[in-house]
Amino acid sequence: MGWAIALHGGAGDIPLSLPAERRAPREATLRHCLELGVAALKANRPPLDVVELVVRELENSPCFNAGKGSVLTTNGTVEMEACIMDGNTKKCGAVSGLSTVVNAISLARLVMERTPHIYLAFDGAEAFAREQVKTMGVETAHSSHFITTENVERLKNAKEAKRVQIDYTQPIKGAIPSTKGDSQIGTVGCVAVDGHGILASATSTGGLVNKMVGRIGDTPIIGAGTYANSYCAVSATGKGESIIQATVARDVAALMEYKGLSLKEAAAYVIERTPKGNVGLVAVSANGEVTMPFNTTGMFRACATEDGYSEIGIWPSGINDDLEYPNK
Amino acid sequence: MGWAIALHGGAGDIPLSLPAERRAPREATLRHCLELGVAALKANRPPLDVVELVVRELENSPCFNAGKGSVLTTNGTVEMEACIMDGNTKKCGAVSGLSTVVNAISLARLVMERTPHIYLAFDGAEAFAREQVKTMGVETAHSSHFITTENVERLKNAKEAKRVQIDYTQPIKGAIPSTKGDSQIGTVGCVAVDGHGILASATSTGGLVNKMVGRIGDTPIIGAGTYANSYCAVSATGKGESIIQATVARDVAALMEYKGLSLKEAAAYVIERTPKGNVGLVAVSANGEVTMPFNTTGMFRACATEDGYSEIGIWPSGINDDLEYPNK
Repeated sequence: MGWAIALHGGAGDIPLSLPAERRAPREATLRHCLELGVAALKANRPPLDVVELVVRELENSPCFNAGKGSVLTTNGTVEMEACIMDGNTKKCGAVSGLSTVVNAISLARLVMERTPHIYLAFDGAEAFAREQVKTMGVETAHSSHFITTENVERLKNAKEAKRVQIDYTQPIKGAIPSTKGDSQIGTVGCVAVDGHGILASATSTGGLVNKMVGRIGDTPIIGAGTYANSYCAVSATGKGESIIQATVARDVAALMEYKGLSLKEAAAYVIERTPKGNVGLVAVSANGEVTMPFNTTGMFRACATEDGYSEIGIWPSGINDDLEYPNK
Repeated sequence: MGWAIALHGGAGDIPLSLPAERRAPREATLRHCLELGVAALKANRPPLDVVELVVRELENSPCFNAGKGSVLTTNGTVEMEACIMDGNTKKCGAVSGLSTVVNAISLARLVMERTPHIYLAFDGAEAFAREQVKTMGVETAHSSHFITTENVERLKNAKEAKRVQIDYTQPIKGAIPSTKGDSQIGTVGCVAVDGHGILASATSTGGLVNKMVGRIGDTPIIGAGTYANSYCAVSATGKGESIIQATVARDVAALMEYKGLSLKEAAAYVIERTPKGNVGLVAVSANGEVTMPFNTTGMFRACATEDGYSEIGIWPSGINDDLEYPNK
């Protein structure tokens, strides 16, 4: 038993040749967010607060596909979505189709706490956000806040290649870099458990490059991209459609609950069963275990537990993890 | 082994005193839709076609809260949603926030078959529908097609009572008829299996009376209101927020897959665990079993199996099931 935290900045076809100038700021953000979450857990903040805090910080970083830095729809717009869930009460909140809300994850929490519903989307979610600006301090911004030049280029390249880019990390040059085509995937998420076994999960995303307007992915779907109960908390990342079909996050918990598997066994089983190249997840259990499996080339990830274990990585353990990078 | 089909027109606080003039057309619609589905199964149509066909017919009936007859948002508008899933391939499609599409369930199927995505919502879903009008025969209509005078009255009463009405069957007069307040719930759905064990599920709804604009319920959420795999097909109905939290449809399948329960055991377990008054479901298994449990006062439901069993009911078996009603 003890606290534990894990977070991710997306799984996908992340090339081992990722240039240092692209790798360093992402690792620094992971490290910073991990430290933020650990400090919050040590200060006895509720896991729900911790995962919201960490995901807000990941949303605020242009390095990852959520909040600022969200990828663009086929119309060149942003449509962000997020979900948060408290494992103890199973209370949850979700939002989709946001175009002006700086921190989608905090709006998801407000849907959970201040409406009779769980899930608001598009114009209704935006209208709700505007109602909460004064009373709850919801921050909104012009779309230029979210749109980066990198993502404008990603969309242009995806359109030239005539595909929905499931995307990440570096602009695709002309031809598709991965032989499978489905390279580079995004999303951010965080799961946490405190010393009393209280669990929480949060996930936020900009979705897919060149996605159709109105497309909803796995992130806001309770049981797909996000889930927490009294056994574990899970945040998934990867190809949303595969994650929805596999009910990835609920299945990790269901395998523990119904089949008696450990967290690691359950998560490994789910990852193994989902088509290769499609999914990664971070998860913690009520007794403080942590696991971060993926079947993609890599997953931006970080974790720490009360007993002193800590890890920050991109590729499978042992690959490139001896490389130097700035720690700030 | 053998084919089986089950369908529902919503679970909720349906009073035993439901007047004959309100009961008869609903039972007639259930009977008609059951006959339609049985005939299609006997004609060896794929289960995916069968559930779509039956749900279209339920959507077209103003008796139930889906398609024509959908309840109204707090703004007096309709926002319909639907979901369809093929158990064999786990392919699925979902839509939310439709205001002009006559058969939401067929648009969900087109999302599944004609886009790289699973789930489209609101303006993007409407735009997709309009693209499919000529090529795929998608039918759209003015909102007056969907809005009934009954539902205008329901909304008025819900607003007077200052609550989000989880609604059904008869207009609420002034005060709330149920002591618990959460009376009367809607949605339609159908599950089917053929003689080869191929399963499919479909669900469609207008949501909650007086719901916030943009609210998404359980119906389009794979694993909550709708799910099918190689074990079973499930369509749930009731209080959407409870169904999302309990991942009702996936849990029925997960209990079979991971805990080895029978269909009836799995469904009963899920219903038992969900707060009373909140949920009902219809489900069929790969080997042709059928179950239709609920923890509400009643659920409009019907089923048939290849071995000759058939049932049409509203309240628990034995209650009021000897009453006469017109068979058309």
